[in-house]
Amino acid sequence: MKDENTVTSQEPSGLGRRRFMNSAALAGLTLGVAACAEKKSDGTPAAAGSAPAAAGHAGGNPSHLKPGELDSYYGLWSGGHTGDVRVLGLPSGREILRIPCFNPDALVGWGITNESKKVMGTKADGSLRYTVADTHHVHASYKDGNYDGRYAWVNDKINSRIARIRLDYFVCDKITELPNVQGFHGIFPDKADPVDPKINYTTRVFCGGEFAIPLPNTGTEDSSKYRSLFSCVDAETMDVRWQVLIDGNCDLVATSYDGKLAATNQYNTEMGAKYEDMMSAERDACLFFNVARIEAAVKAGKFKTYGDSKVPVVDGTRESNKDPKTALTAYVSVPKNPHGVNASPDAKYFICAGKLSPTATVIELAKVLEYFDGKLEAPDKAIVAEVELGLGPLHTAFDGRGNAYTTLFLDSQVVKWNVDAAIKFHGGDKSAKYVVDRLDVQYQPGHLNASQSETRAADGKYLAVGCKFSKDRFLPVGPLHPENEQMIDISGDKMVLMADHPVRGEPHDFIIFKRDLVKPKQVYNLEDFPLAVKDPKASGVERNGKKVTVRLTSQAPAFSMREFKLKKGDEVTLILTNLDKVEDLTHGFAIPKYNVNFIVNPLETASVTFVADKPGVFWCYCTHFCHALHLEMRTRMIVE
Amino acid sequence: MKDENTVTSQEPSGLGRRRFMNSAALAGLTLGVAACAEKKSDGTPAAAGSAPAAAGHAGGNPSHLKPGELDSYYGLWSGGHTGDVRVLGLPSGREILRIPCFNPDALVGWGITNESKKVMGTKADGSLRYTVADTHHVHASYKDGNYDGRYAWVNDKINSRIARIRLDYFVCDKITELPNVQGFHGIFPDKADPVDPKINYTTRVFCGGEFAIPLPNTGTEDSSKYRSLFSCVDAETMDVRWQVLIDGNCDLVATSYDGKLAATNQYNTEMGAKYEDMMSAERDACLFFNVARIEAAVKAGKFKTYGDSKVPVVDGTRESNKDPKTALTAYVSVPKNPHGVNASPDAKYFICAGKLSPTATVIELAKVLEYFDGKLEAPDKAIVAEVELGLGPLHTAFDGRGNAYTTLFLDSQVVKWNVDAAIKFHGGDKSAKYVVDRLDVQYQPGHLNASQSETRAADGKYLAVGCKFSKDRFLPVGPLHPENEQMIDISGDKMVLMADHPVRGEPHDFIIFKRDLVKPKQVYNLEDFPLAVKDPKASGVERNGKKVTVRLTSQAPAFSMREFKLKKGDEVTLILTNLDKVEDLTHGFAIPKYNVNFIVNPLETASVTFVADKPGVFWCYCTHFCHALHLEMRTRMIVE
Repeated sequence: MKDENTVTSQEPSGLGRRRFMNSAALAGLTLGVAACAEKKSDGTPAAAGSAPAAAGHAGGNPSHLKPGELDSYYGLWSGGHTGDVRVLGLPSGREILRIPCFNPDALVGWGITNESKKVMGTKADGSLRYTVADTHHVHASYKDGNYDGRYAWVNDKINSRIARIRLDYFVCDKITELPNVQGFHGIFPDKADPVDPKINYTTRVFCGGEFAIPLPNTGTEDSSKYRSLFSCVDAETMDVRWQVLIDGNCDLVATSYDGKLAATNQYNTEMGAKYEDMMSAERDACLFFNVARIEAAVKAGKFKTYGDSKVPVVDGTRESNKDPKTALTAYVSVPKNPHGVNASPDAKYFICAGKLSPTATVIELAKVLEYFDGKLEAPDKAIVAEVELGLGPLHTAFDGRGNAYTTLFLDSQVVKWNVDAAIKFHGGDKSAKYVVDRLDVQYQPGHLNASQSETRAADGKYLAVGCKFSKDRFLPVGPLHPENEQMIDISGDKMVLMADHPVRGEPHDFIIFKRDLVKPKQVYNLEDFPLAVKDPKASGVERNGKKVTVRLTSQAPAFSMREFKLKKGDEVTLILTNLDKVEDLTHGFAIPKYNVNFIVNPLETASVTFVADKPGVFWCYCTHFCHALHLEMRTRMIVE
Repeated sequence: MKDENTVTSQEPSGLGRRRFMNSAALAGLTLGVAACAEKKSDGTPAAAGSAPAAAGHAGGNPSHLKPGELDSYYGLWSGGHTGDVRVLGLPSGREILRIPCFNPDALVGWGITNESKKVMGTKADGSLRYTVADTHHVHASYKDGNYDGRYAWVNDKINSRIARIRLDYFVCDKITELPNVQGFHGIFPDKADPVDPKINYTTRVFCGGEFAIPLPNTGTEDSSKYRSLFSCVDAETMDVRWQVLIDGNCDLVATSYDGKLAATNQYNTEMGAKYEDMMSAERDACLFFNVARIEAAVKAGKFKTYGDSKVPVVDGTRESNKDPKTALTAYVSVPKNPHGVNASPDAKYFICAGKLSPTATVIELAKVLEYFDGKLEAPDKAIVAEVELGLGPLHTAFDGRGNAYTTLFLDSQVVKWNVDAAIKFHGGDKSAKYVVDRLDVQYQPGHLNASQSETRAADGKYLAVGCKFSKDRFLPVGPLHPENEQMIDISGDKMVLMADHPVRGEPHDFIIFKRDLVKPKQVYNLEDFPLAVKDPKASGVERNGKKVTVRLTSQAPAFSMREFKLKKGDEVTLILTNLDKVEDLTHGFAIPKYNVNFIVNPLETASVTFVADKPGVFWCYCTHFCHALHLEMRTRMIVE
């Protein structure tokens, strides 16, 4: 395991730099804010000794597929500010689909069709409630500890929304806005029911609220009255089941494989309103939730509600949960402003990375359960390792062979470390070399994830790393740089960098899983659409005073009506069914000057509603290439 | 050149299939609409003889860059329905940037900031005029027959708009909506002034209007009164200089290197309103414009205007341009529904592909000028070749070595052919083998372009092909398939397929040029923003009745004010200047529930205006990862 070139953090030469930083050192870090973005850290023993990038590149780089060769893994990527979920093929890193969720999408007609507006949510005047989003984390539904291909979920931090993706059609079908919270950040589905062993699949999604606000949000200035909540959303109905009032804030979320525990790391136990206050304490926390007890408390009516919200809120504060045997929550302390909490695939541990501490903390879940049973004297006794990894540790992935991979934001590295060795080292065996390898990445990595890492079937083949800065890694394109997602081969002892991929700003998190875990459907079912125009002969214009319904079908290269007439002022609902049932034969429908464009996939029906307020001739045309006569595929809308 | 495995189209074995089709055959094509999408054409001698895909893949596939290796070419890609321009690195095919133009973009804040709304255009109530677009063609400004790195332009077909991109900052700075036209499709900058030889660079952009409409658009049903126009936009002011009333429609556009000629292919000289009518004639046309004469006519006041538009419209119809010596236009006939007109890099020819005819037509520009001089008896005498290539020819690119590459939509092939040999063959030398190579592509290719193909510096290295259908080439992702853009190495005699890239629907066209032709700037100039908050001390809230101006700066990891207070009902303009001047150090700014999110790049200033209509505490936070304390970077907006 030990390599001459690898200076591990526990060795003296690394100590000065990697020493657990105190507040004074942090003040320096804060002042030197630009440095981490301006240039990579100076060479240090650890950095200099990292595995040579792309050492194994010559020969069979597995990310270099031949034309026509299919990827072996799917990746589901948070779309960042575009508010979508991106579907990648891996190891190639190719983006195959973007699934619009929170924001309009002018290709699909998301936010334009009535069907998508219903999912997205509208104001009283029918316009979209929101058109911006900030998605961070994508996670998928489980069964028996592996993905079951039913759903994925993604958060919107700006407006505290959660969206669900159906993984049969790869579309968003539900969006829920969480009450009482701001800055909803972490998200994770449960993997089993805490009580009923037959429910060995996801039925809940947990959501961490990051920013503390007044409850209800009256606008009071006194920030000591502000609170954050942890929320549980029903995986099927997408209703908010319950919330927990907590001390401190929520950041990321993890869940245990047995369904009993959920947790969130807390970077601001100080509940500070300014960043200096948020980093005053040496230790923050990983906050555990006893799911069964919380649901029992809700059932027993031990909850409050706030403002207009009907969602039951139970009390998870420290003060109200001092008795472990009845506690809904347990606060395990972890060093300074932790970022990231990740469940190991052996189902034993949650690991928190320190961010402003160079450490990772390993918490044993069996011991947390012991605490809740009154058999462990303090929550912190569940900590089985707390080891130094490097500067700015953020997130951790796993290979299923006992190794963890943690991003080091400030060091611009991924460090591979052995969890068992770390536990031994923490237990006093100073000969235990837990750092296995280090690899420089370009630059400032945030999230990372390995193939199947968040399941019991972690397979340790590929690791994707989301580097926040790309700097000089791609051709210059003006002031806005892409981020750099790097693909790393982790199948051997040494990590090998395979490829750089530029990505549009802020994808944050992603998951990677084997391609046989989903069974996508490529053609819709006509019967699934209540408005479907099932026969071209059903096409026509139906008038009911000013309310007009236009029914159309598409079959390449023609729409079923070559023209239709409206009167100025008509309130028009246009329904289009694509009767082409050939896979990949999608049609588009645009109306010039009327701000309408959407697509209908094979056997899909979509509708738009607009007021015919502009007289004239408007050539509605197919905007999605369908046929040699695609350009000629039009229908004429005449507004008299 | 001749290869045993290549059966060229002029050989007897290929004739049956590739014979110039008559209307009867076309009716069959139309009925068999789904076939072209459903499956690739059956094997034919020509298809069977195509170069083996990826024959040269083993070993040095140039599209497979090592991590950190930079691309050697830029690609500017039409973004399709997302209304943006995508910047790619080639030969890797990686997307480095998306430049929002016509549609909102929630990352940049395009359509959210006041600065972007001004470019996009708003209604009287301040909301965006349009939020959908259908971009097709991107072309860049020229000097001395090569790109000069100043501008690129892209069209929006739905709303007849043209957007300009500044290639120093890679941002859209102007959008113009064309009057009197619908379905603005083709676009091409001129390459020189037709009169002043000192102006050896782009000063005009030509725009082809595709759908004929009433002038003015009264909504009359009588389609015989409908007309299409060809438009000229000033490259600097982006004003519409003039338009030309024509017979038939405009599709794509090409310009000559001497600035004297522009042309558009016409697929609907019949001026039919239904697709069957549009394909009734055996020959349509390539319509040439005499730029100098048109501008002289405008200067001489020989024009009309329509409706509210002040743009001068000259008469380019056949009837009014019978005398070649005074004609503004010349209609050169080309076979059935041509799609694509492309200028060869030797400056001699425009080539039209037949789409519903299996032919390409080579038109010699010197002869067109002879026609305008009264020295050629008919425009059609400028045709120097009309040769069969295969089924569904659409677009043509060039390698600078005398070869053309044409996409065959129905055959799912790219055919490489020699222009001089085609001219010889057309001239009677039946031994001239003009087809050099064929390559199967996957599937149904539309546009293609080669590196530097649209310049005098065509270098024949790489060819990108935009395949409209991907079918089985990528992992399945539900009903909406990506398109498949394929990269082909054309440096040798045989084309070699290098890589498949999935792309989101409908990019259509693109250009590829050497990376040293642009000089991007990575940091803005503070002085370029009139509203810039140049010092954190200038931050504050300025109240003028209900009008409130909030001035803020950002320097990682903090905004200059940790909080600011507003009153319910305030009309707020918030101005944010990013004082971080480090390359790649971008900040974001989101206001929960207020539908605000935008970024400020290094030394950029942006502003948003909103009504503070919701009371409460709102944590405005940095949405673009900037620093280890990025999560902690917030300011508190209190609405009382």
